[in-house]
Amino acid sequence: MQRISLAHGEGGELTHQLIQDIFIQSFGHSEQTQFDSAILAIPSQTIAVTTDSYVVKPIFFPGGNIGKLAITGTVNDLAVSGAIPHVITSGFIIEEGFPIKSLKEIVNTMAWEAERAGVNIIAGDTKVVEKGSVDGLFINTTGIGVMQKQHRLKPEAIREGDSVIISGTIGDHGVAILSARNELGLLTDVKSDCASLNHLIHELLEEIKGIRIMRDPTRGGLATALVELCEDFRITVEVDEASVPVRKDVQGACDILGYDPLYLANEGKVVIIVDSNDKQKALDILKNHEMGKDASVIGQITSCHIQSGKLLLKTAVGTTRRLNRLSGQLLPRIC
Amino acid sequence: MQRISLAHGEGGELTHQLIQDIFIQSFGHSEQTQFDSAILAIPSQTIAVTTDSYVVKPIFFPGGNIGKLAITGTVNDLAVSGAIPHVITSGFIIEEGFPIKSLKEIVNTMAWEAERAGVNIIAGDTKVVEKGSVDGLFINTTGIGVMQKQHRLKPEAIREGDSVIISGTIGDHGVAILSARNELGLLTDVKSDCASLNHLIHELLEEIKGIRIMRDPTRGGLATALVELCEDFRITVEVDEASVPVRKDVQGACDILGYDPLYLANEGKVVIIVDSNDKQKALDILKNHEMGKDASVIGQITSCHIQSGKLLLKTAVGTTRRLNRLSGQLLPRIC
Repeated sequence: MQRISLAHGEGGELTHQLIQDIFIQSFGHSEQTQFDSAILAIPSQTIAVTTDSYVVKPIFFPGGNIGKLAITGTVNDLAVSGAIPHVITSGFIIEEGFPIKSLKEIVNTMAWEAERAGVNIIAGDTKVVEKGSVDGLFINTTGIGVMQKQHRLKPEAIREGDSVIISGTIGDHGVAILSARNELGLLTDVKSDCASLNHLIHELLEEIKGIRIMRDPTRGGLATALVELCEDFRITVEVDEASVPVRKDVQGACDILGYDPLYLANEGKVVIIVDSNDKQKALDILKNHEMGKDASVIGQITSCHIQSGKLLLKTAVGTTRRLNRLSGQLLPRIC
Repeated sequence: MQRISLAHGEGGELTHQLIQDIFIQSFGHSEQTQFDSAILAIPSQTIAVTTDSYVVKPIFFPGGNIGKLAITGTVNDLAVSGAIPHVITSGFIIEEGFPIKSLKEIVNTMAWEAERAGVNIIAGDTKVVEKGSVDGLFINTTGIGVMQKQHRLKPEAIREGDSVIISGTIGDHGVAILSARNELGLLTDVKSDCASLNHLIHELLEEIKGIRIMRDPTRGGLATALVELCEDFRITVEVDEASVPVRKDVQGACDILGYDPLYLANEGKVVIIVDSNDKQKALDILKNHEMGKDASVIGQITSCHIQSGKLLLKTAVGTTRRLNRLSGQLLPRIC
């Protein structure tokens, strides 16, 4: 059989075979074999839980595929919360006729990326729907992480003068997806930055006590992530546009198409608010990693405990303007 | 705004509003507000985790909707594993143009069912895809339950003579879905049995020490669930067809359409293997509940420690035949 059929999703013999041949083959046996749920021991009673559905289009893109994105996205959500990613569940919704070869490739990528990140994939689910009822393949991943007391983030300690750091160039994922869709009308070499940041973030949390809070600037981009931080913690963040790292080809694509890299999705970046006394140490650690080599201090907290938080951008020409979260439609199905 | 637009899934202002107006309105605030993950304390270090995607068609059916199914299905998966359901995550994939009124109704049903089952809904996610890329609405739910030592299931204690109990009539969900699709060509009053069984199962586990293992016979029906038990634990189960409870109208629909109720999905039933000394006590507890009032002993374990498990059916006419798991295509998108 070369393609997925509806019967693969019926819960009977073919579902059994699909699970045996593809999922268990790649993900290994879980504790789940005897039960409807995976039963597992976890090294803490405080856990972090996150869930995401992935509907990226196209499913394969420069720098990754939907499976890699599902693992790295979930790992990063846990990591920026200060948790150590522990296990991930995966739910597949597959269109009838989907090539089994592609499914295998995606599942193998997930297994490989999970191993790199040090998480186990447990408790999967597979549904198959008729041709036309879903666009190829969607994946949901839910991650459970373990909180460690010594890694507790301290957003309550945010104060004026704290630094804002981004771990690298922004907008790469967004432009890679646009490019893969041939929506650019031009060729770029930009690859998605999608990567698991948990080991890098773990090192930062081990070494630096002054980290207040972190976010992964995915859908909605860096600007939206920062606006949310400003609102959640009632602070003003001032970003210096000139210090925000953007690849030349990403900026070029944005200039042509009228996009702002600040609003384009990233899938392997973290934005960090840190005590300014620790900013150099944080930068040193980041730059020592492949994934953080373009890290940059991009701004600071200019006021705290205000009524409603706001994000300000100091532009290259010296003016300051307020940025809001992404409004309206920019790029559907970016992740 | 009356319909979901692509911009509702972009992670910006409209996503924010959708989450505020619909999800937080119904599900309440989670611990998630400050982080990318929900951070929570759990009362045990042994947990059960399960995940399921729901693609049922139609989304609304007699006895429930996709949201009720997502909660009850996940609650039941945890409960039959011997876990106390604790939290559920929910991921929504919504088709552009989906009516906001329907989304609200579904989300409200989920909130209501979660409250009834005693679980919190945490850590949601919303993606919106273009018209035609998904059939209305799919939901993924992942559940985390807490294991209790005194409720540990003991499949290793299964022995010859153990009883097999089903908690009520089978095939109701399957026929209700068929009926809602107008595929029957006849009208039935059959409602889906979809319901959270965790309180009932909790009482069984509190009162009866001889429960070996449980399963919820969903996709693939009672026969597939029993075949899996037989294979997993290398036992022979002999089921007496005459004692399997089937509603008359369900049997009638099956007779007309050529379906076997043993393979039709159930969404509010549990099959239990129990020490035969405890079978009467288990029946008494079940029959004392609305959801277990039609419970019946349907068979027993006739051999253990065999090379490969098998399920035998003693038919009404006195013959015995072997049943396999569902093979091929029966009813796509039943859950």
